[in-house]
Amino acid sequence: MEPKAATLARGTRDFGPAQMRRRHYVFGIITEAFRRYGYGPLETPAMEQLVTLTGKYGDEGDKLIFHVLNSGNFAEGIEEGVWMHQRSNPKGLVPLIAEKALRYDLTVPLARFVAMNHSKIAWPFKRYQIQPVWRADRPQKGRFREFVQCDADIVGHEISTFHRAELLRIYQEVLEALGFHSFAVKVNDRRLLALLAAYGGISGRWAELGILLDKLDKQGWDKVGPELVQLGMRSDAVEHLQSALPASSRDGSVMSWETYLNTVSRWMQDPNCIGDAGLREQTELALDETQRMVEAYERLGTSPSKLTFDPCLARGIDYYTGPVVEVVSPALGLGSLGGGGYYSGLTAMFGYPDWKGMGISFGAERILEGMEQLGLFREEVGRGLDILCYATSPDMELVAQQWTARWRGLGLAADWYSGTGKFKKAYQYAQLTETVAMVILGDREWAQGEVMVQWIQGDRSMKVQPEQIDAAFLRSALKQA
Amino acid sequence: MEPKAATLARGTRDFGPAQMRRRHYVFGIITEAFRRYGYGPLETPAMEQLVTLTGKYGDEGDKLIFHVLNSGNFAEGIEEGVWMHQRSNPKGLVPLIAEKALRYDLTVPLARFVAMNHSKIAWPFKRYQIQPVWRADRPQKGRFREFVQCDADIVGHEISTFHRAELLRIYQEVLEALGFHSFAVKVNDRRLLALLAAYGGISGRWAELGILLDKLDKQGWDKVGPELVQLGMRSDAVEHLQSALPASSRDGSVMSWETYLNTVSRWMQDPNCIGDAGLREQTELALDETQRMVEAYERLGTSPSKLTFDPCLARGIDYYTGPVVEVVSPALGLGSLGGGGYYSGLTAMFGYPDWKGMGISFGAERILEGMEQLGLFREEVGRGLDILCYATSPDMELVAQQWTARWRGLGLAADWYSGTGKFKKAYQYAQLTETVAMVILGDREWAQGEVMVQWIQGDRSMKVQPEQIDAAFLRSALKQA
Repeated sequence: MEPKAATLARGTRDFGPAQMRRRHYVFGIITEAFRRYGYGPLETPAMEQLVTLTGKYGDEGDKLIFHVLNSGNFAEGIEEGVWMHQRSNPKGLVPLIAEKALRYDLTVPLARFVAMNHSKIAWPFKRYQIQPVWRADRPQKGRFREFVQCDADIVGHEISTFHRAELLRIYQEVLEALGFHSFAVKVNDRRLLALLAAYGGISGRWAELGILLDKLDKQGWDKVGPELVQLGMRSDAVEHLQSALPASSRDGSVMSWETYLNTVSRWMQDPNCIGDAGLREQTELALDETQRMVEAYERLGTSPSKLTFDPCLARGIDYYTGPVVEVVSPALGLGSLGGGGYYSGLTAMFGYPDWKGMGISFGAERILEGMEQLGLFREEVGRGLDILCYATSPDMELVAQQWTARWRGLGLAADWYSGTGKFKKAYQYAQLTETVAMVILGDREWAQGEVMVQWIQGDRSMKVQPEQIDAAFLRSALKQA
Repeated sequence: MEPKAATLARGTRDFGPAQMRRRHYVFGIITEAFRRYGYGPLETPAMEQLVTLTGKYGDEGDKLIFHVLNSGNFAEGIEEGVWMHQRSNPKGLVPLIAEKALRYDLTVPLARFVAMNHSKIAWPFKRYQIQPVWRADRPQKGRFREFVQCDADIVGHEISTFHRAELLRIYQEVLEALGFHSFAVKVNDRRLLALLAAYGGISGRWAELGILLDKLDKQGWDKVGPELVQLGMRSDAVEHLQSALPASSRDGSVMSWETYLNTVSRWMQDPNCIGDAGLREQTELALDETQRMVEAYERLGTSPSKLTFDPCLARGIDYYTGPVVEVVSPALGLGSLGGGGYYSGLTAMFGYPDWKGMGISFGAERILEGMEQLGLFREEVGRGLDILCYATSPDMELVAQQWTARWRGLGLAADWYSGTGKFKKAYQYAQLTETVAMVILGDREWAQGEVMVQWIQGDRSMKVQPEQIDAAFLRSALKQA
């Protein structure tokens, strides 16, 4: 066989040991928070029935689904005429040859799981799920065709204020635990879009309004402002929006609860809105629910609240029907670090219209990128080996191996370097594997019952008896460094 | 949209919280052993280039690869004549419409990773990888189309005896840590197949011999014996094999090192073999290497060795070129719990013929099944919530929520049950979520500064002050149960 140059599929990545340790660390912190808040783990298959996914993500989303070709003679049953007819119509052809597709998000699989297991699970169903998803997006910087999503959702007939608030609190706790300081948990209620549309003179067209507002983050007012006017929004309303929300999440300006209330009530007082009793009722309900959620949030933790408010926050108008949330860290310039909200009707597609839900999602890939940017990975996160045991001569090999086994028995990550006498190579191995310390066994030191400990960080070394080396020794020696 | 009945793709599974906790526990024990032995984590993408996978698993394997359809107008470029011509020939048609495929195992991705990153990684490269793989096998009991593999491999220019032995030792350590007692780590050297073929009078036909011997496990001597004779093996040699290895791994009979040596040297003395100097040399080398590996194994741990020997063990003749290993637990009747071996030429397919490797793989799905069978999951493995906080009346809700937040702050997994006053439902929720204890806040107890702790296991209850409840309290109370 001719050797082939090895390459990755476009838009996919390998994660070597150093990256994986950092990923495990971040996923571990997120998992731990989910666990403490009573969310249980769920995993669903990579491949779903195509019919489970089709039509759930809009036309644009459908185009990004990866399809898995049927096994065996998949084409045999397709008539020549059908093939010719459908050749340029993937939408028609795909279902004939692919009955399975790759998971596109974790939400539709959750809905399917709940529909299939509703009689067996605990209600409300609180689950977290950390798994890769696949999208046939054009790969570009920071956008991949395989990436990990980290979701927590609560699904039930009613979602209590306490549980709505806890999802927001998880954001704050996790990001603080990871070392982020400069971030905000932005809150809105999707029902306010109806008010905003009425205020702007485009009553009822909240869906189109929401789509445009969603672009604010990336495109700013210069681009979105004129589009709002084109949609039919009054230009003074657009100007008001722009001044009330200078650039939404971009420059880190945040809106307090009071300003949020004032802004919304100003819209409510507008001649376009003031006479609409239905609109008033819906708005008051949304504000009341939000206020109770904010109060519950305050009671859920002790660190100063990172909640801020944004009456233009829309997030996925297809989907959310109540509170919406987005985590931003404007200083990072990475876009949102997570988002979520309240939804109803998610499981309706599988025949169960009554269940409501609320969920949050961590943008794990962006969080990892942000942590690199800010240098938030403490040194110990990257540690591979605790000890690399190295013999200076063949005489010492057996002793080195025996001590390696002993340290492993004490719970340390330890290895013996097989290149006896090749110090430079051993040292390089220790560096590449992010080893804490080399333990060097030389005949002369050994004759006195000692070994040399060579710390990899800081290039210090010291002589000790091997019996002294354990987890506590490594910890305390590192602290002194 | 018409609601559709939700179903899973054939041969795939969901894992709900209770199952996931048990899976995490098993993967955690395996990961921890890999880490202590100096193996670093690697993850590779689910989708590989089709050319990376094709031809690596034999014709039968190739048929089981899942292909990912190209995005967009994937069929447009295919001429009508080509389609008609290839319609019944998936092998010809697939590469025209699918340039990606799903990971079939973790070994080829390892080889690709090593080839792509050889100048950057630490040598020897020691990695572990725990990820799902996909195979278009016919689903049946215990066989799935998506399942998790757990591999550890060392790759380098030479694999030291110490590192060969440690891979065997990891098997023993992990299985003992999981609670298995009755298992054996069977060892052989693939090079002995040449001797066995010569001894049986079918010199040189060791590959076909290996394929038949591999079936022994599942089909036994009744089926395999006659096939060996048909292959041309002397019937007295077949009878000898059958008596020396009554049923290989099936009935738990194990072969000691001495019996193994005697058996092999008896073959060597056979007229068919005795004059063949090359065969003698190869056999002696294999035995010598095995002996040194066994000695190193003894030094690597303190628990009594689980090594046994089987001169008929072949395992994947396409692949392994030296020591091979298989873990069996005949009492379970589940087939092998893991296997691996030494290989050379793995990376040759990507242009690097010099690297050798040795790897082991845990049959995680079988291990999980075996643990269920034997009841090896200790009670705490399945614990979901530590505390479910329940208010008997609306007056107590706020207090219940505040204490829930406080226990979460102490690191406990705690939740508040939103169905105030519905004790039976709350209790059922606690059972389904595998909760340790319900904490019941009733007006009367609260007036005296107390709450009721209702243990879910054993149905005991007690009154305590809420300040007393923390991780230590739960642990000690559970111990007394």
